[in-house]
Amino acid sequence: MKVSEIGEFGLIARLSRMADKSGDKSQGAWRQLIAGIGDDATAYLNDGSIQLATVDSLVQDIHFSLKYTPWKELGWKSLAVNLSDIAAMGGLPRYALVSLGLPGNIEVEDVITLYRGMIELATKFGVAIVGGDTIASPVIFISITVLGSAGNEKRRILRRSAAKPGDEIAVTGYLGASAAGLEMLKKQRHFSTGDTAQLKKAHLKPYPRIIEGQLLVKNGVKCGMDISDGLIGDLSHICEESRVGARIDTNLVPTSPVVKRCFGKQSLELALTGGEDYELLFTADKKVMDKVKKEIKCPVTVIGEITTAKSNEIKLIDNRGKQVEIKNTGWDHFSKGLSFPRRRESS
Amino acid sequence: MKVSEIGEFGLIARLSRMADKSGDKSQGAWRQLIAGIGDDATAYLNDGSIQLATVDSLVQDIHFSLKYTPWKELGWKSLAVNLSDIAAMGGLPRYALVSLGLPGNIEVEDVITLYRGMIELATKFGVAIVGGDTIASPVIFISITVLGSAGNEKRRILRRSAAKPGDEIAVTGYLGASAAGLEMLKKQRHFSTGDTAQLKKAHLKPYPRIIEGQLLVKNGVKCGMDISDGLIGDLSHICEESRVGARIDTNLVPTSPVVKRCFGKQSLELALTGGEDYELLFTADKKVMDKVKKEIKCPVTVIGEITTAKSNEIKLIDNRGKQVEIKNTGWDHFSKGLSFPRRRESS
Repeated sequence: MKVSEIGEFGLIARLSRMADKSGDKSQGAWRQLIAGIGDDATAYLNDGSIQLATVDSLVQDIHFSLKYTPWKELGWKSLAVNLSDIAAMGGLPRYALVSLGLPGNIEVEDVITLYRGMIELATKFGVAIVGGDTIASPVIFISITVLGSAGNEKRRILRRSAAKPGDEIAVTGYLGASAAGLEMLKKQRHFSTGDTAQLKKAHLKPYPRIIEGQLLVKNGVKCGMDISDGLIGDLSHICEESRVGARIDTNLVPTSPVVKRCFGKQSLELALTGGEDYELLFTADKKVMDKVKKEIKCPVTVIGEITTAKSNEIKLIDNRGKQVEIKNTGWDHFSKGLSFPRRRESS
Repeated sequence: MKVSEIGEFGLIARLSRMADKSGDKSQGAWRQLIAGIGDDATAYLNDGSIQLATVDSLVQDIHFSLKYTPWKELGWKSLAVNLSDIAAMGGLPRYALVSLGLPGNIEVEDVITLYRGMIELATKFGVAIVGGDTIASPVIFISITVLGSAGNEKRRILRRSAAKPGDEIAVTGYLGASAAGLEMLKKQRHFSTGDTAQLKKAHLKPYPRIIEGQLLVKNGVKCGMDISDGLIGDLSHICEESRVGARIDTNLVPTSPVVKRCFGKQSLELALTGGEDYELLFTADKKVMDKVKKEIKCPVTVIGEITTAKSNEIKLIDNRGKQVEIKNTGWDHFSKGLSFPRRRESS
């Protein structure tokens, strides 16, 4: 069987099982592991404090195209998707290691601009870029490792496996603008100057919800992740890991206003399945949720509820109470030829 | 200017300076950084203990060829080069995160075999493979992050910058067999069954000197790294970082016996510049060196001395006291088309 037939999630599931079975869980590194495969980042104990690590690679013409991604934005975004993984655990990012694969005919000035974009974002969160390598490659790839921490043992992290029936499901910010931006860039669609700039920014310069992730943990949220593959696709990861179902009221989903303006009828689908918004998706009981809404400055919208439905059954209900059908639920790069989004089930 | 003109080391030096200048060294993550760019791995303080992190990427047809690299060995080696970076700091590897770039037409069974090779080595050192991603890519690449530790604050790590004039220069094990193995595989040269097997193993299944690295630190060695780019190339990194020179007695260099048998006159050059032996190269005063020789079970050979010569001047002396000239001193993938070796100056 070819990799393209089993698909990305099928493959990572098989490899993960192999790795997971290989170790003696009662010993050494395995014993101190808190979250491994199945969460946004790896979490392990070190001297009583929780350490986080995540790695993500972006490949030219699979995850980005130089046709519509300026080098600086490419640098920013490559780091942003990794910082978002640390945010998704409620942690604090500290160090970044960058591995760059580059064809020999790339301009040095472009690589420097790429680094500038990375450094611009790193500086905002006090992240130190401390190592990495540059290697010859027929295709550009950017593989970034981010190391973070999540306080001491008593402090919790956000897990995908912690959703409970009855929990409210919420998201930060607005959804759909990144996918809409990609659509605009790929199909060269024209909108007003303001809308164009907003859509571009949403796709090329996502802002990781580091502060918000930490506030979620502080206020007692236990289940969360970032939206990289699309709301429905990512919610299905939570449902799988937590062995629960979910109900989403589609009219509650906070579709980005610019997406509504520019994409009309298509906007709900973009918000539900678009991916790469890098907002946080989380669940908590009503009491915790009410606290969160007060504490977090960005919009927090409750969009549905965790149910006892069989694992991974997600019902989408429209404003007339009718069930909505959608076609795509997330990204799988081995079977589709899409651009930029992230694509994984593990850290 | 193109990346191929500035070369790999020139590029990483520029990027490193940019990253290094970006942070406020008196604050947060930067303040707790012990070793960043310029060593085999990043080292930072966390609650009084030293954490290590390293990332390395291997790209198909640049660093390996499937023509002569079986999948299992590819998995082993990909992890081994990273574990060797932790060994080069005198640390203990704990976790590995694997990012795999794969064309869709690769057989799932081959990827599983690759993982088997990785797990085989990981298990030997209690390393837990805990995360990563698989992504679509037109070319295979394997990017591995290894996280390790190096005891508490008082305990030292091996640095490239700690060599002092008068220090003896030593290496563990024997040199040249990995490059000789690559030469044999590429040029389809034929030797005895035993020699063929030995050369293959040296190139495809290097054994990281984890135990030895830790013993070096324990016995007071402060300066060391692993030999990935070749003895002379790597020694020049130590000389640069330590601002010293070096003298090597070429007749003392422990060329691998199998290389001498199979490659005759070429063997010294293979030992001096071949690369990928993943032995440890270190310096220490005579007293510490004598202690090390007693404590470490593998061969330890003193091959020369650190001198006060101007930074990075390495003199090679033959058995008649005459200076030896060599052509290549290490690998740079942007300017040469060689196979598999590592190529970087930073972690």
